[in-house]
Amino acid sequence: MTNPNFGVIGGGSWATAIVKMLCENVPQVNWYMRNKEVITHIEKEHHNPNYLSAVEFDPKQIKLSDDINKVIQESDFLIFVVPSAFLKKELDKVTVSLKDKIIFSAIKGIVPESQSLVGEHFHNEYDIPFDKIGVITGPCHAEEVALERLSYLTLACANEEHANTLAKYLRSDYIKCNISEDIIGTEYAAVLKNIYAIAAGIAHGLGYGDNFQSVLMSNAIREMNRFIKKRFKLKRNINDSAYLGDLLVTGYSVFSRNRYFGNMIGKGYTVKSAQMEMSMIAEGYYATNSAYEISKSYGNKKPKTPIINAVYKVLYEGKNPKEVFAKLADKLN
Amino acid sequence: MTNPNFGVIGGGSWATAIVKMLCENVPQVNWYMRNKEVITHIEKEHHNPNYLSAVEFDPKQIKLSDDINKVIQESDFLIFVVPSAFLKKELDKVTVSLKDKIIFSAIKGIVPESQSLVGEHFHNEYDIPFDKIGVITGPCHAEEVALERLSYLTLACANEEHANTLAKYLRSDYIKCNISEDIIGTEYAAVLKNIYAIAAGIAHGLGYGDNFQSVLMSNAIREMNRFIKKRFKLKRNINDSAYLGDLLVTGYSVFSRNRYFGNMIGKGYTVKSAQMEMSMIAEGYYATNSAYEISKSYGNKKPKTPIINAVYKVLYEGKNPKEVFAKLADKLN
Repeated sequence: MTNPNFGVIGGGSWATAIVKMLCENVPQVNWYMRNKEVITHIEKEHHNPNYLSAVEFDPKQIKLSDDINKVIQESDFLIFVVPSAFLKKELDKVTVSLKDKIIFSAIKGIVPESQSLVGEHFHNEYDIPFDKIGVITGPCHAEEVALERLSYLTLACANEEHANTLAKYLRSDYIKCNISEDIIGTEYAAVLKNIYAIAAGIAHGLGYGDNFQSVLMSNAIREMNRFIKKRFKLKRNINDSAYLGDLLVTGYSVFSRNRYFGNMIGKGYTVKSAQMEMSMIAEGYYATNSAYEISKSYGNKKPKTPIINAVYKVLYEGKNPKEVFAKLADKLN
Repeated sequence: MTNPNFGVIGGGSWATAIVKMLCENVPQVNWYMRNKEVITHIEKEHHNPNYLSAVEFDPKQIKLSDDINKVIQESDFLIFVVPSAFLKKELDKVTVSLKDKIIFSAIKGIVPESQSLVGEHFHNEYDIPFDKIGVITGPCHAEEVALERLSYLTLACANEEHANTLAKYLRSDYIKCNISEDIIGTEYAAVLKNIYAIAAGIAHGLGYGDNFQSVLMSNAIREMNRFIKKRFKLKRNINDSAYLGDLLVTGYSVFSRNRYFGNMIGKGYTVKSAQMEMSMIAEGYYATNSAYEISKSYGNKKPKTPIINAVYKVLYEGKNPKEVFAKLADKLN
């Protein structure tokens, strides 16, 4: 495809970062966001008032719209970057065809309504062939993209050509791209790491130190490997940056929303009050439930997931974090 | 062996932490350190004036001596915890037999004089059978042991019985012990992680952010795996806490001496001036040279070690860290 048109769906920090990356390479990016006021602000002031506000956009390079159908129609590649909890609501507005579109998800969560990965959701609900579905994963804090600090993305697609095309338009002085065929594995990694970040936060809130955190992360990557293997067998190195790197950048980040949420729980907040304290619910909260249910669905053959189970017990069964984590600590090694 | 006697050789923070752990379980620990004044201070004030000074010892529980031969003679298990650069100097004082002793190394470095691991050094120079040589590794900051924060050790020994015996006397409310047979691999991991901590420090000093650090660590563990595999084939999971956990606790620690050293280099200090600024040379400095030479010795079959090579170029060839790391970044994924 020569000179494809790109459409970004979403107005948050990661969406803003992706638009910035594309603007390094393409003459114009179609950009959908639901909030008309924010659009007006960006058009006037050339920056997103709510996220990465230091990033200046050239108004000629961005074509904003609050009409998702228009943006879809005018784009060949669509990059979805809305919280997974709102994806269905956005897609319900779509009346134009998604056929022939190449759809990449930069969403790190499970769609609550279908309990499926975003890629699976598009495949099952919209009949998009897997060949045209891809995933964009980190390790990548949007804030560092804004600062143009060197970052690595992994683009996963069963059709390598699509991943390579997108990579061509995302690469720049500060962005390197890896290509992968592991669309299921990379997407699960992006989902599960948020659960482990909650676990890291709970541990920190309970007073566990750095020695424990490193053991937790070392167990987390092994647990992630077991879980993903069970879902989708493929020759992969779980220590590649899309898996281990993504886990580390989130698990060790004091800015991670999921880690922050966990930290409050560890410090004694109830789940409700921690959620109220935060303006937005941490993606890992939903992911914990989904991952727990998926794991359970394997019955006797379920993968060993002590960390996910512990976080589930704290978040969904109201169990005491201190007791749950003392028991978890006995299972780690 | 019923009620073995334990001797700790060394007076630094890790030695002090190990004596503390043993004191949770044994009536008396033999403790050698070279500095007579420090011994007098500990005997009088019940704490080490230089390291972990908040840790109180029961004077009845520690039998201090500046005579290494006496401590060796009176102990069945010897735990060596001196900087690798000073090991030979200490061992040169030894006139009594080391035969029949079970020797564990908690040293994280390569002996400069013999260019070998501590375990290999004891085996080659003192004829100690590998059966009686073991390794104590983390991930474990001594400071957190002092605070009695939950920590995990790995005890590696070809003879599992010795590892289990030592574990019995190190375990406590805040110490859990894993057992491993991978004496070579765990010891190399403890050595190599210091090189990667220097790399992390250099990157930080140069202004690379968290996104890059996570990619660096993800590449580092793969590089460590290739290196160790080449040295000693064994079925091991490189994501176990003795390998990945130990890498993370050091690589992500702002207190790590090696990371601090690298950070100064990244900020523009010369190697000489960075070393002068620090009271002690970072273990990783020597390890870089050794690991580089070992890797080179494989000729065409050498393992791919771009991170070790980059740190070597900066530390030993006086190459510009900014340029070296820009090239390194192209090799990472």
